[in-house]
Amino acid sequence: MKPRVAITLGDPAGIGPEIAVAAARARRVLSVCEPLLVGHRLPRIPLGRPSKAAGLAAIAALQEGVALIQAGQAQALVTAPVSKESFALADYGFPGHTEWLAQQSGIKEYGMLMVADHLRALLVTRHIPLSQVPEKLNRDSIAVAARLGFNFVRDLLKKKNPRLVLCGLNPHAGDHGLLGTEEDRLLRPVLKTLKRQGLAITGPIAADAAFRDMARGAYDMALACYHDQGMIPLKVFASERMVNITLGLPYIRTSPAHGTAYDIAGKKKAKTGPMIEAILLAAKYGGRAQSQTPTRKANTEKPNRKTRDS
Amino acid sequence: MKPRVAITLGDPAGIGPEIAVAAARARRVLSVCEPLLVGHRLPRIPLGRPSKAAGLAAIAALQEGVALIQAGQAQALVTAPVSKESFALADYGFPGHTEWLAQQSGIKEYGMLMVADHLRALLVTRHIPLSQVPEKLNRDSIAVAARLGFNFVRDLLKKKNPRLVLCGLNPHAGDHGLLGTEEDRLLRPVLKTLKRQGLAITGPIAADAAFRDMARGAYDMALACYHDQGMIPLKVFASERMVNITLGLPYIRTSPAHGTAYDIAGKKKAKTGPMIEAILLAAKYGGRAQSQTPTRKANTEKPNRKTRDS
Repeated sequence: MKPRVAITLGDPAGIGPEIAVAAARARRVLSVCEPLLVGHRLPRIPLGRPSKAAGLAAIAALQEGVALIQAGQAQALVTAPVSKESFALADYGFPGHTEWLAQQSGIKEYGMLMVADHLRALLVTRHIPLSQVPEKLNRDSIAVAARLGFNFVRDLLKKKNPRLVLCGLNPHAGDHGLLGTEEDRLLRPVLKTLKRQGLAITGPIAADAAFRDMARGAYDMALACYHDQGMIPLKVFASERMVNITLGLPYIRTSPAHGTAYDIAGKKKAKTGPMIEAILLAAKYGGRAQSQTPTRKANTEKPNRKTRDS
Repeated sequence: MKPRVAITLGDPAGIGPEIAVAAARARRVLSVCEPLLVGHRLPRIPLGRPSKAAGLAAIAALQEGVALIQAGQAQALVTAPVSKESFALADYGFPGHTEWLAQQSGIKEYGMLMVADHLRALLVTRHIPLSQVPEKLNRDSIAVAARLGFNFVRDLLKKKNPRLVLCGLNPHAGDHGLLGTEEDRLLRPVLKTLKRQGLAITGPIAADAAFRDMARGAYDMALACYHDQGMIPLKVFASERMVNITLGLPYIRTSPAHGTAYDIAGKKKAKTGPMIEAILLAAKYGGRAQSQTPTRKANTEKPNRKTRDS
C-alpha cells in the first residue's frame, strides 16, 4: 500500500499553496504515495506579505497535519514554507517549523538535515550569528547530531556502516592549530569519545574537501559546524532538488529548502522541483519508517483540534 | 605571438614537478602558450615530506620565475604548490606564495581569487581562524577586495559592467538583524560608500543564494567574507579545474588550487587538471594584460640572482 503523505499548504500569502497543489498532481508523486493536502480552501489573505491571518492559517494547517500523523491517517508530513513574520503577527512564539514540531512531539534532541541528491548536511548549529558559532559548538551539540545522523543513515538509508564525516570549523580544519584550535581542543576529543560509543565518524577534515569528496560518493552525510557550511555546497550542487528533513521526530517530516517567496506568490513563477522532491523523500522514508521501525510514543501535547475547522 | 608562461616546479618533494612537466606537454597548453619550466633538474631531496632542501629549491625556482617576468622573458607566472613547512625549515618567514610574491613586488594590496569555471570567489579574509573573521572583516579589507575584483572583471574578463556580489557574513545575510548585525552595521554602509565611488556591488545577500545564482550565470565574481565561504562552493562545483589567481601583482600569477599532496608524490596518481587550467588562465590573462595594460613599475627589491644557479 502506498503511504499517505500529509502536505500542509504553509503560509497562504506565499508560494506554498501553488507548489503544494502542483506537486500533489505530479505523476512521480502519485506513483509513490497518496498525497493529502492540508489547509484552508479559500482564506481571505493578502498575497505577497506577512499577516496575522496568514500566520493563523499556517498554524492551523500544521496542527491538522500533525493530528493526522498522530491519528495514523498519514505516514509522513511535508510542510510548505511558513513565514516567521506571519508567525509573529499571529502571536506564535516560534521562529519556524522545526522548533514548533519538536515541541509538539515533546522532544529535546532534534536535527536539521539538508539533502540535495546524495549530498547530505546535518547542521550542528543552526540559525545563529556566525560570531556565536565557536561558543555554541560543543560536546553536546556534536554528540546529538552524531547520534541523529547515524540513526538516519542506518535506519532510513539502510546502510549498515554509516559513513559520516565531521567538517572542521576552521579553514584547512585548523591546519595543526595554525588556523584555529577548536579542531584539537574540541572536535577530535569528541570524535574519540563517540568512537568508543560505537559511532565512528571521519574527521575533522576541511569542509571544502569533505563536500567535494561527498559529491564523489565518499560519505553518506556530513556534520556541518554552522549553517552556511552545510547550505552553500548543497545549494550550489542541486538547489532545485534541495530538501530539509527534521531528525528526531517520531515521524518523517520534510519540506522544500526554500522560503515563502512572497515576491513571486501567485505569479505562477514558483518552481515545484524542491516540493516534489520533499514529497518523494517523505514517501520513501515514511514508508521505510512505517514498515520497519517500532512505533514510538509520540506527542506529549494534543494539538488543538478546534483549529481543524477554523 | 603566444605568450610565454613561466611555470615554477614548487616543492620538489611533492607532486609539483610531475604535474608541471605533464601539463607543459599537454596539447591544450602548447596551443595557447610557450611553457617554460623553472626549477632544479635533479635536486637530491627526500620525496613526500618537508625538508630544508625542498624549501630552498622551491624558493630558488620562485625567485627565478619572478626574475624572468621582470626581465620581460615571460608574460605570466604559474606556480606549482609549495609547502609551508619546507618554507619554515629553509628559514623563509612566509606562509605561502601569495605573501612572498606581494612582498617581491612591493605591493600592500593584494587579493586571493579562486576560480572554478565561471564561479569566482575573492576571499576578503583568508587564512585565519573562523572566530577571528568577524573582527578582521572591516571597511578596508572589503574596499580593497572590491577594487581588485572590479579591476579584474573589467580589465581581464573584459566586462564593461562588472557584476560583483558581496556575500553576507551570517546565515540568511543576517535576516534583518535577527541572525547577526554585521550586514547592517558594516556591509551595507561599505557598499553604499563604494557605490558612490563608482563600484556598484550587489549585496549583501545570503552566501548560499549568491553562489547558487553565480552558478546560473548571475554574477562575474563573489566577495566571500571568509575562506571556507568561498572555497566550499567552488570545490564542490569544479575542484578538478580550480585555480588560484593573485590579484594586485603587476603581472598575472596563477596556481592550481591544491597543495603539495606529499602522500601521493612520485606515485603517478596526481591529477593534472588544475595545473593545466592554471596555465590556460595564465596564458589567457597574461596575453590580455600584456596587450592592453600599460606596464607598471613592479619590484622594489631585486631577487637574488645567485639562486638561479643554486
